[in-house]
Amino acid sequence: MKKSIFYHAGCPVCKSAEHDVIDLAGSDNVEIVNIGENKSRIDEAEKSGVQSVPALVTPNGNVLHINFGASMEDVKA
Amino acid sequence: MKKSIFYHAGCPVCKSAEHDVIDLAGSDNVEIVNIGENKSRIDEAEKSGVQSVPALVTPNGNVLHINFGASMEDVKA
Repeated sequence: MKKSIFYHAGCPVCKSAEHDVIDLAGSDNVEIVNIGENKSRIDEAEKSGVQSVPALVTPNGNVLHINFGASMEDVKA
Repeated sequence: MKKSIFYHAGCPVCKSAEHDVIDLAGSDNVEIVNIGENKSRIDEAEKSGVQSVPALVTPNGNVLHINFGASMEDVKA
C-alpha cells in the first residue's frame, strides 16, 4: 500500500496529531515529514494541497487538515 | 481496542473525510455517527470536545477536527 504522508512543523498541535494518526493508521503506513526542519519539502507539500500543518495527504491524494497548528506562511517564516 | 468515533453531518466534506478515515483506520475501528440525522448524539459529541464536523474522537479522547464541513451550530439548526 502506498503510504500516507503526515506533514508537520514540530508544533504542539502537530505532535499531538502525529501520535493520533500513527495510532490510527500504524507507523508503517505513514511517512512523517517535518517541513519546519526539512524546508526542501515545503514545495511538495503545497503542490499536494497542504495549506496548514498538521496535515495528512492520503495515498489517493486527498488532504486532511487536522486541527490547526500553523499556516504554510508561518512554516516558511 | 476501543473504537474511534467519527462524527459527521452528511456534508460533502464529511463524506470525503469519512472515506479517508475508514481507509486509514479500518472500518472495524471506527464508529460512524451522523449527528445531522441522529441529533440525540450532538450533546455527547460536544462533551467530547467536537466543535465542528467532520471530527474524529480517538480512543484516548483526543479530538481531530478534519478539514471543515459545518459548525455545531449549523448542525443544530
